Amino acid sequence: MPKDNISASVIKRLPRYYRFLGELKKQNVPHISSRQLAESMGLTASQIRHDLNCFGGFGQQGYGYVVSDLHTAIGKIIGVDQFNPTILIGAGNLGKAIASHINFDTKGFTLIGIFDSDENLKGKKIGNFEIMHTDRLQEFCKSQKPVAAVLCIPKSAAADMADTLVEYGIRAFWNFSHYDLKINHSDAIVENVHLGDSIMTLAYGLNNIRK
Amino acid sequence: MPKDNISASVIKRLPRYYRFLGELKKQNVPHISSRQLAESMGLTASQIRHDLNCFGGFGQQGYGYVVSDLHTAIGKIIGVDQFNPTILIGAGNLGKAIASHINFDTKGFTLIGIFDSDENLKGKKIGNFEIMHTDRLQEFCKSQKPVAAVLCIPKSAAADMADTLVEYGIRAFWNFSHYDLKINHSDAIVENVHLGDSIMTLAYGLNNIRK
Repeated sequence: MPKDNISASVIKRLPRYYRFLGELKKQNVPHISSRQLAESMGLTASQIRHDLNCFGGFGQQGYGYVVSDLHTAIGKIIGVDQFNPTILIGAGNLGKAIASHINFDTKGFTLIGIFDSDENLKGKKIGNFEIMHTDRLQEFCKSQKPVAAVLCIPKSAAADMADTLVEYGIRAFWNFSHYDLKINHSDAIVENVHLGDSIMTLAYGLNNIRK
Repeated sequence: MPKDNISASVIKRLPRYYRFLGELKKQNVPHISSRQLAESMGLTASQIRHDLNCFGGFGQQGYGYVVSDLHTAIGKIIGVDQFNPTILIGAGNLGKAIASHINFDTKGFTLIGIFDSDENLKGKKIGNFEIMHTDRLQEFCKSQKPVAAVLCIPKSAAADMADTLVEYGIRAFWNFSHYDLKINHSDAIVENVHLGDSIMTLAYGLNNIRK
């Protein structure tokens, strides 16, 4: 059982552990020491031991971790084996790419519907999904009970949409808009993706780090 | 002039400052105190003063920061006014979305070409760009001298592609693949976007935070 009050930075590292261990598993590596794992991940061994201790501790002194066991255990802690019903709002370029590119089913979610407020997109397909108009959201949420939403809409539309979705029972948001959801919905579980911030961090590096 | 050895976490906050100040500027807010800015960004006032001091300090005691001046100054530090020539590799769903969704020109970059190794995509258009085959990369890089590349390719293809691009003069990578570019190219400037890690962090929240 995870301890309470685990720091956000430890939680943010969990998917990375899961990803690295998945790679090792694919390469048929049977065990790994915290030192080896630390080296491959650019962390320190004590950081890894501390992180994993937050979740009950794994591995044996002098023997290391059993890769496939640790991979499975971390996957369960994250909840990758869950299928939280999820809707995606905003079927523009970004929404389309997220819907097609992300394998929700291996990451704790299952995509069950795609919505857009643009009448012209209604009925068009993204993969196996027919885009629905947002005026069907209430009815859909009532019957299908999604708990998570991916917001691929502009900031200007996100505030109203977040209010609506919270009212309809959405608890978790994967937020690509720049709207700060936590301001009005402090209880919501939010993960923000600021692609613009990321590319500007790269710009800083290119402009300030000497050749 | 930025000091040397500015921590990665300060640098990562710069685009956020830039974004928040841009919003304030739009709302015609003339000045803001570090306390007010801190509150709106979920930081502490002393953190903000410390961060901005890394870049020479702005603002006056008891008066705060002039919003539009600080916005412009941080933009210049990031280099949003630069047009670093950039290519995008991988014209699948994600590459298409990034090419269409991101306004490179306001973030320090200018997109000058899109490449894919798939013969079937050659000549197809994304916005105003005709997708080129990757066999034209060398010639293109020689004549157009891009310095940055967006990698929207799978991990399996990324190692070879990174080697090639570094050889052709690329110094900065916006990396959407899960390949750890720094291992073989420690001098490269790399900003990784792990969308899968982000959605798994959300899964953790949904599965572990009590309702």
